[in-house]
Amino acid sequence: MAKMSNGIRVGIIGASGYTGAELMRFLAHHPQIEVNILTADTKAGRSMGDVFPHLASLDLPKLVRIEEADWSGIDAVFCCLPHATTQDVISRLPAHLKVVDLSADFRFADVDVYAETYGQKHRAPELQTDAVYGLTEIEREAIKSARLVAVPGCYPTGAQLPLIPLVESGAIDPDEIIIDAKSGITGAGRSAKEANLFAEVSEGIHAYAIGSHRHAPEIEQQLSKAAGRSVAVSFTPHLMPINRGLLSTIYVKLANGAAVGDIREALAKRFEDEPFVQVVQGDASPATRHVRGSNQCHIGVFAGRAKGQAILVSAIDNLVKGASGQAIQNMNLMHDIPESAGLELEPMFP
Amino acid sequence: MAKMSNGIRVGIIGASGYTGAELMRFLAHHPQIEVNILTADTKAGRSMGDVFPHLASLDLPKLVRIEEADWSGIDAVFCCLPHATTQDVISRLPAHLKVVDLSADFRFADVDVYAETYGQKHRAPELQTDAVYGLTEIEREAIKSARLVAVPGCYPTGAQLPLIPLVESGAIDPDEIIIDAKSGITGAGRSAKEANLFAEVSEGIHAYAIGSHRHAPEIEQQLSKAAGRSVAVSFTPHLMPINRGLLSTIYVKLANGAAVGDIREALAKRFEDEPFVQVVQGDASPATRHVRGSNQCHIGVFAGRAKGQAILVSAIDNLVKGASGQAIQNMNLMHDIPESAGLELEPMFP
Amino acid sequence: MAKMSNGIRVGIIGASGYTGAELMRFLAHHPQIEVNILTADTKAGRSMGDVFPHLASLDLPKLVRIEEADWSGIDAVFCCLPHATTQDVISRLPAHLKVVDLSADFRFADVDVYAETYGQKHRAPELQTDAVYGLTEIEREAIKSARLVAVPGCYPTGAQLPLIPLVESGAIDPDEIIIDAKSGITGAGRSAKEANLFAEVSEGIHAYAIGSHRHAPEIEQQLSKAAGRSVAVSFTPHLMPINRGLLSTIYVKLANGAAVGDIREALAKRFEDEPFVQVVQGDASPATRHVRGSNQCHIGVFAGRAKGQAILVSAIDNLVKGASGQAIQNMNLMHDIPESAGLELEPMFP
Amino acid sequence: MAKMSNGIRVGIIGASGYTGAELMRFLAHHPQIEVNILTADTKAGRSMGDVFPHLASLDLPKLVRIEEADWSGIDAVFCCLPHATTQDVISRLPAHLKVVDLSADFRFADVDVYAETYGQKHRAPELQTDAVYGLTEIEREAIKSARLVAVPGCYPTGAQLPLIPLVESGAIDPDEIIIDAKSGITGAGRSAKEANLFAEVSEGIHAYAIGSHRHAPEIEQQLSKAAGRSVAVSFTPHLMPINRGLLSTIYVKLANGAAVGDIREALAKRFEDEPFVQVVQGDASPATRHVRGSNQCHIGVFAGRAKGQAILVSAIDNLVKGASGQAIQNMNLMHDIPESAGLELEPMFP
Repeated sequence: MAKMSNGIRVGIIGASGYTGAELMRFLAHHPQIEVNILTADTKAGRSMGDVFPHLASLDLPKLVRIEEADWSGIDAVFCCLPHATTQDVISRLPAHLKVVDLSADFRFADVDVYAETYGQKHRAPELQTDAVYGLTEIEREAIKSARLVAVPGCYPTGAQLPLIPLVESGAIDPDEIIIDAKSGITGAGRSAKEANLFAEVSEGIHAYAIGSHRHAPEIEQQLSKAAGRSVAVSFTPHLMPINRGLLSTIYVKLANGAAVGDIREALAKRFEDEPFVQVVQGDASPATRHVRGSNQCHIGVFAGRAKGQAILVSAIDNLVKGASGQAIQNMNLMHDIPESAGLELEPMFP
Repeated sequence: MAKMSNGIRVGIIGASGYTGAELMRFLAHHPQIEVNILTADTKAGRSMGDVFPHLASLDLPKLVRIEEADWSGIDAVFCCLPHATTQDVISRLPAHLKVVDLSADFRFADVDVYAETYGQKHRAPELQTDAVYGLTEIEREAIKSARLVAVPGCYPTGAQLPLIPLVESGAIDPDEIIIDAKSGITGAGRSAKEANLFAEVSEGIHAYAIGSHRHAPEIEQQLSKAAGRSVAVSFTPHLMPINRGLLSTIYVKLANGAAVGDIREALAKRFEDEPFVQVVQGDASPATRHVRGSNQCHIGVFAGRAKGQAILVSAIDNLVKGASGQAIQNMNLMHDIPESAGLELEPMFP
Repeated sequence: MAKMSNGIRVGIIGASGYTGAELMRFLAHHPQIEVNILTADTKAGRSMGDVFPHLASLDLPKLVRIEEADWSGIDAVFCCLPHATTQDVISRLPAHLKVVDLSADFRFADVDVYAETYGQKHRAPELQTDAVYGLTEIEREAIKSARLVAVPGCYPTGAQLPLIPLVESGAIDPDEIIIDAKSGITGAGRSAKEANLFAEVSEGIHAYAIGSHRHAPEIEQQLSKAAGRSVAVSFTPHLMPINRGLLSTIYVKLANGAAVGDIREALAKRFEDEPFVQVVQGDASPATRHVRGSNQCHIGVFAGRAKGQAILVSAIDNLVKGASGQAIQNMNLMHDIPESAGLELEPMFP
Repeated sequence: MAKMSNGIRVGIIGASGYTGAELMRFLAHHPQIEVNILTADTKAGRSMGDVFPHLASLDLPKLVRIEEADWSGIDAVFCCLPHATTQDVISRLPAHLKVVDLSADFRFADVDVYAETYGQKHRAPELQTDAVYGLTEIEREAIKSARLVAVPGCYPTGAQLPLIPLVESGAIDPDEIIIDAKSGITGAGRSAKEANLFAEVSEGIHAYAIGSHRHAPEIEQQLSKAAGRSVAVSFTPHLMPINRGLLSTIYVKLANGAAVGDIREALAKRFEDEPFVQVVQGDASPATRHVRGSNQCHIGVFAGRAKGQAILVSAIDNLVKGASGQAIQNMNLMHDIPESAGLELEPMFP
């Protein structure tokens, strides 16, 4: 479509994965962002429509190796590479480029926590200093002026949106948070692994990385910031036989006299002006199928059977609000473009 | 979103089914169509967001019974009712309303064929005279000036797009056409039937209505028109465990010296300016997942093993190009709005 | 197959649902149980092979209305009716029939709890006195001599097997149990409801009956018995887009100095001679797909991130160990047949 | 389970794939076959329960490299290796071993056809001379005395069972056969390929290898044998988002005065004593979900709309009747064991 003349020009690094394709699906109709460079590694040389036939009718630049990219004239990049690889790539990019990074490499303010969590020393600690954690609704002001934004992980996004306001206000006990999360398979990316084959994933569910998933320290970092002290959470991810969708069922204990109705109201008020967060009223439970393909996060608040227990449920599309959609939301903010630009697609159901 | 001031105002009759929701998903961001009335039957009185939570963030009129609708000030309606019911409803609508009907009621030029196919006498034969068959790419000119357009069935849409140009040109034998079609479950609508339960549909496939499906006479009507004589086809539908998607594998015999390359080229040329029909080149086979959620139709042409045989494959989203998308495409044409308006969404994959 | 001459003759009441079909799948090759009566309601008069084509090659009695059944010569029945209906039917059965009931009607020792949970007064309280709760591995001795056994609900089965031994021994705090359960759709039965349609269930997950599901009081009854005092649990069920499978992720707090290794060992020892319960060793997490179609329950024990927290994971097939398989296991016990008879099928994967 | 003392001892070569696991699922309860050797390549050294957790409760030999296997004392092997690899392995096996091979290597009586189809010269042509094509119901007598049986491909099994009797009798025109087949993903094996990932396969269908699939020459070989002359067929496979199941919709032209009723009756009569082939009567259409997990083949015969056209539909489980089940059926025959031994499992639905 015709882009506005004051548009920004971007590249997507690592465009041959699902988050790259998903960026492209939204950016194709973004009024002010124009995609001029697409890089890939083993798939360099092919067209995007060859790698992703659903995008074949778009007129897109060919996939090139990152070394071939000419960054002059480009304003910003989305970086969709695996963690660890990313820090080296970003540290070599020209300084004029703003960066929205979808990997885990710049999510940890403390590079030692990164090292411990991801099993290797951080190789671009000086860049980390500039990085802003890109949970848009919570860190909006910092994002606006950032050069480098680290998009949160999908699980942290779904968990933090309902939790942070409640931890900040003291309405729940930050030491008694249990997050039971269920994700669609696209969260595992497009690489060919036996465990991700259709026949291995369909007609079943299982938990994984119990007690040890790398998103737990990320969640703890942000909840600790909200609590003003160190907090540990229980976080258990599950793999579901769906493409997209991430449901977080979060068990919390009310504190400081808060009732379930209070925290529902507090969240509703906190997010009332947010275009992409809806606090569901009544008995309806958020369902991933009702946010599928959109940048929406649906949040529900329920009373548990046990006294003083509340149950928070959030639903997002892991590829959109949990990755590419939130990335665009941040990119918009960084360029003073209306935050919802390019993201106004309704969920697709069924 | 803000609609243009010269927009048209429409109603959706029978908005609580999947085609109604799908119309809404696209129309929410249509620059020139504004939805002012939504009717439903048993779900009247509820909000659209209650019936379809994925649309909850839209500001929509409440579902009302059709008797409650005030059609003054409305320009046109989409009618999403079941066949047989539809003719009565449409015949009672005010004459100033243009109508795009998604049922089978006005698809048959010959009301006797309708009666034979649908098992009951047509009760609005006079309206049938005005009706135009809404296969957009083929009947565009007639649609532009129609008051009542009958959107083709999903199966006929997928089959006719590749077949009609070839039957018209004589490149294939119209008496030797075999259509083996596979559809997602949304083609069966949202009514609660045992046969459509998740547990009855998942992890399996079966053919149904073999030799007797109601879409066969509809396909024959249009192919007969293209051939200039009466034509019978073999058509076998299958039910697949997917939500959306309709793949038609069509076995044809080449005629008049045509080769496989010729018919591929003929189709490519026939559709080269069409925004919603792509003839796939090379070895790639059309896949429903690559058109999911979009108004696209992908067509492939292949050589069979047997001499003189060609295999045409088309893929559409049965709810979009096979229903609501094509309905909007027609509505645009009927109001001299750019044909693609509101329909420029990329497919969603995965 | 040829049955042994000392076999028992049974009827299945309500055979046209999924649990009825699943009983038949196992009993077809049971060496000592012969099915002589199959009853149904709206489907009476049809053959089982018509209602369930996968069983068409078995030589089975026709479906009859319950009033038509001749119970003389029959030893026992499986009752697969909905709750509430069941109590009336069972109270009218001849006294010589042993009964394994799959409904909720006789699961509550206290009929007032039943009334409160299921919203109506119990109409056969005298029968309740005789009923034994059929969680086989826990109540084996009582089941052996019972006339009426109430098969536990699917969720209670998955939750109680790992929990009861630990609550009994005091290794976990019974007041701090959180059960996050995920079930396949067959748990909802075969009735035609919009919410259970393929298009409503696939590609998504949601929680339901949060804080209010009827299986919570059932779980509490048995855990209270194990604890020797009244216990309340947090229980949240989720609906998954799979046919079969029930995964329970259970968050507990260790008590009385127990460590995670201790409770894993305790469970392994408790179940070491059980043919249908396996405590998984090492890092592997139980997955529903690895018990699919079998009477197995896989249990895993993991350390949480928080100090003193353990995470128990159990996987069963809700239709087998959670319903029909456990029913047969109980029926075997009640007739002094080897407990595993007819149940020795391996899981089916993929 | 306890095996009979006159049992045979077998090995499974290539046991870490889906067909190996499926052999094991059936053989675990086979009254006369005992599995003593399991070989694997990259997974050698692991236990079968580690590679396939659903088999973890069986007491099985460890996976060893084929070079480590001691074939003395072994009577027969199932060979589950990829084509091309297989011929080398089998030609090195001791001569006392009977072999049931699930690969394509010994399916072609004419090694030149093999070479042309599989793109390489056959390296064990002398073994080919002894090989028998293992379509059990058709080649039963030859199989009984064979040393080496080549199990047919899954697609050829589903297509040939209904076609061969009709081609043999001349009731259909062998030059006008169109086979439109739809398979579950397990037909593609367990190797880690991007195309077989859950996210690439789910919610969609596509045709592949149109006009060029390797199973077409295999089907033609057997149909030519049945026809007594060379026959070419049209065969188009499709990939479905299901684990198991293969539906073949076959379009044929009646010949020699045969009517649809005649061929239905002829097939019913041809297969009336077969335990694993059912000709469905009435309007019901075979569905893959009704044979899932079993060795059954369901066949339906229907009239097409076009005069003289009939439509045959067959449904099998590609992993069972299309691979491991038929392999056991053949193994039984080769050892004079009752043909159904170990295979008497009902289909699993849902």
